[in-house]
Amino acid sequence: MTYQQSIIPRSVEWKESYIRLLDQQKLPAATEYLHLETVEDVWDAIKTLKVRGAPAIGIAAAFGLALAVKNYETDDISKFQKWLSRDHDYLASSRPTAVNLFWALSRLKNSVQHARSAEEAKTVLLHEAIQIQVEDEETCRKIGEHALPLFNEGDAVMTICNAGSIATARYGTALSPFYLAKENGIPLRVYACETRPVLQGSRLTAWELMEAGVDVTLITDSMAAHTIRTKQISAIIVGADRIAANGDTANKIGTYGLALLAHAFQIPFYVAAPLSTFDPATGSGADIPIEERDAAEITHIAGCRVAPEGVQVFNPAFDVTPHELITGIITEEGVLSGDYLLEIESIFQQAKK
Amino acid sequence: MTYQQSIIPRSVEWKESYIRLLDQQKLPAATEYLHLETVEDVWDAIKTLKVRGAPAIGIAAAFGLALAVKNYETDDISKFQKWLSRDHDYLASSRPTAVNLFWALSRLKNSVQHARSAEEAKTVLLHEAIQIQVEDEETCRKIGEHALPLFNEGDAVMTICNAGSIATARYGTALSPFYLAKENGIPLRVYACETRPVLQGSRLTAWELMEAGVDVTLITDSMAAHTIRTKQISAIIVGADRIAANGDTANKIGTYGLALLAHAFQIPFYVAAPLSTFDPATGSGADIPIEERDAAEITHIAGCRVAPEGVQVFNPAFDVTPHELITGIITEEGVLSGDYLLEIESIFQQAKK
Repeated sequence: MTYQQSIIPRSVEWKESYIRLLDQQKLPAATEYLHLETVEDVWDAIKTLKVRGAPAIGIAAAFGLALAVKNYETDDISKFQKWLSRDHDYLASSRPTAVNLFWALSRLKNSVQHARSAEEAKTVLLHEAIQIQVEDEETCRKIGEHALPLFNEGDAVMTICNAGSIATARYGTALSPFYLAKENGIPLRVYACETRPVLQGSRLTAWELMEAGVDVTLITDSMAAHTIRTKQISAIIVGADRIAANGDTANKIGTYGLALLAHAFQIPFYVAAPLSTFDPATGSGADIPIEERDAAEITHIAGCRVAPEGVQVFNPAFDVTPHELITGIITEEGVLSGDYLLEIESIFQQAKK
Repeated sequence: MTYQQSIIPRSVEWKESYIRLLDQQKLPAATEYLHLETVEDVWDAIKTLKVRGAPAIGIAAAFGLALAVKNYETDDISKFQKWLSRDHDYLASSRPTAVNLFWALSRLKNSVQHARSAEEAKTVLLHEAIQIQVEDEETCRKIGEHALPLFNEGDAVMTICNAGSIATARYGTALSPFYLAKENGIPLRVYACETRPVLQGSRLTAWELMEAGVDVTLITDSMAAHTIRTKQISAIIVGADRIAANGDTANKIGTYGLALLAHAFQIPFYVAAPLSTFDPATGSGADIPIEERDAAEITHIAGCRVAPEGVQVFNPAFDVTPHELITGIITEEGVLSGDYLLEIESIFQQAKK
């Protein structure tokens, strides 16, 4: 028996003369892929949030720089480096808070610092950009491979926000096991929380899982407890924005509540994230600042006012789930659990070797 | 020191020649009061959900019948009774699932069954309609009086949905203590969950508390856990749609999750509801059917699509909070707690006396 390869949507693709980029702002109303042909196009796409998700932004920026250098009409490597610096800084200015953006751009710049010719530098830089994407896809796939055995055939699993394929090179983190299950013909059902205020669950997660033929059901965040009880949810899996040295995890607002529900219902609560999400310099969740965002995210939906004018609003973008509520943290190197402080230290020791 | 009487919005008011009715469909964009001058106007207002909340619907229907009989041009009591029956049935058809509607209309019809003249019947019927409103306001006020001592000055209390003044004659149930606190100059802060999918929290609760000058902050349902932890929420109070003999409580979807959070954070979780909400014939929450509503409530907000076309949706309107998660049920007769089966039986025994 063979199974059809599922069609997992990709956010960013290198097409030699242009970058094919999924316009995530248009979802779910329309599925549109943009053709970015200039570095300005890429800058604009990042700036206007058409691409989102830390790895996907990094990949888009890397391809953007590769696109830029293609047109450098010079054989002079020092001129090349000067232009590269300019375009590096330009792309880095598209979203000044995106750490992955700087990381990817710096990695590209560094990759050509010993290049002897502009020709060589162009080749090396493009190779490095593609490598960033390949590595991220590999990382996501490995996370899925480690996560998949945690579920049984037919399980119903809950998730929040979009830790999905379109936030990464492919597969995503929390959604990776569902794509691998699909590829392997293992039936799993996903219950996606819509994820107010910005609705990444309904707009993005439901969309990409449906595209790939994964069985997904949408609920509002308020339905989580009733759904866990009545739909026999067997586990919850979420992504992460930042994981502290002790395992405390910052993720989309609503995650902490789900972790408490998992605890109440005695079902496992998993965090799926690459090692790059860990921040060993941050001791615990108490050291993670929680960004508060614009009230309009809550008072308006799709441009329509849904709350009284002038209402006070509390709009934290993230919350922190304490490590003791996390059954396991699934990384590309395996599943961490138990004493996270030790486990995280040890996995970083190994990674250094 | 004296305090200004707070202006608590009313849903329905009898104005002799018309009924003044708050158009809740227009909230929060516009505060519009309709003048209902005919029984058809009232039928339409109920049908099109301009008035909502079981007690408020009952009151609107009662006033609607009082409006109808005003125009009966007859001295013949049997003709009066015939016309009354017709208008009773007509109004009862406006919302066939609203138990309070039938209750109020039947009570009016019964009040005049021994009337000897049309003149007398008109007076008795109007008196009875006003009585329904007065009694409901009294009930709500008593609930608030029993609830208020459960909070301390400066407390931050969380609620969901709209168990408010505009769902009742005045004061509401879960919101009643906040209005009484306001009237008595006791500072309390309310955190209102927006209450997806229908957003009663943002559209109605935030609106009516702001109108009365109560300190209210709006959050999404997904922010409850983080808010309880970071804003030192001292208690959660909610209304009820139906309370079983053992205290299990059906209420707006999201209530059960809040009760589990209250348990996790070891803060009290209160249900505020009149005795009319109790259904001693229903043994436990397992016997309460949970209505599932239209997928469009989740996939569309304010007419705008926010989820992919054709997505599977699970949309339960209510959930059931098991009695063991409820710290107390606040009724007009006092606060029930502990062995709910006994307490509920005993309060109904007393009420019969």
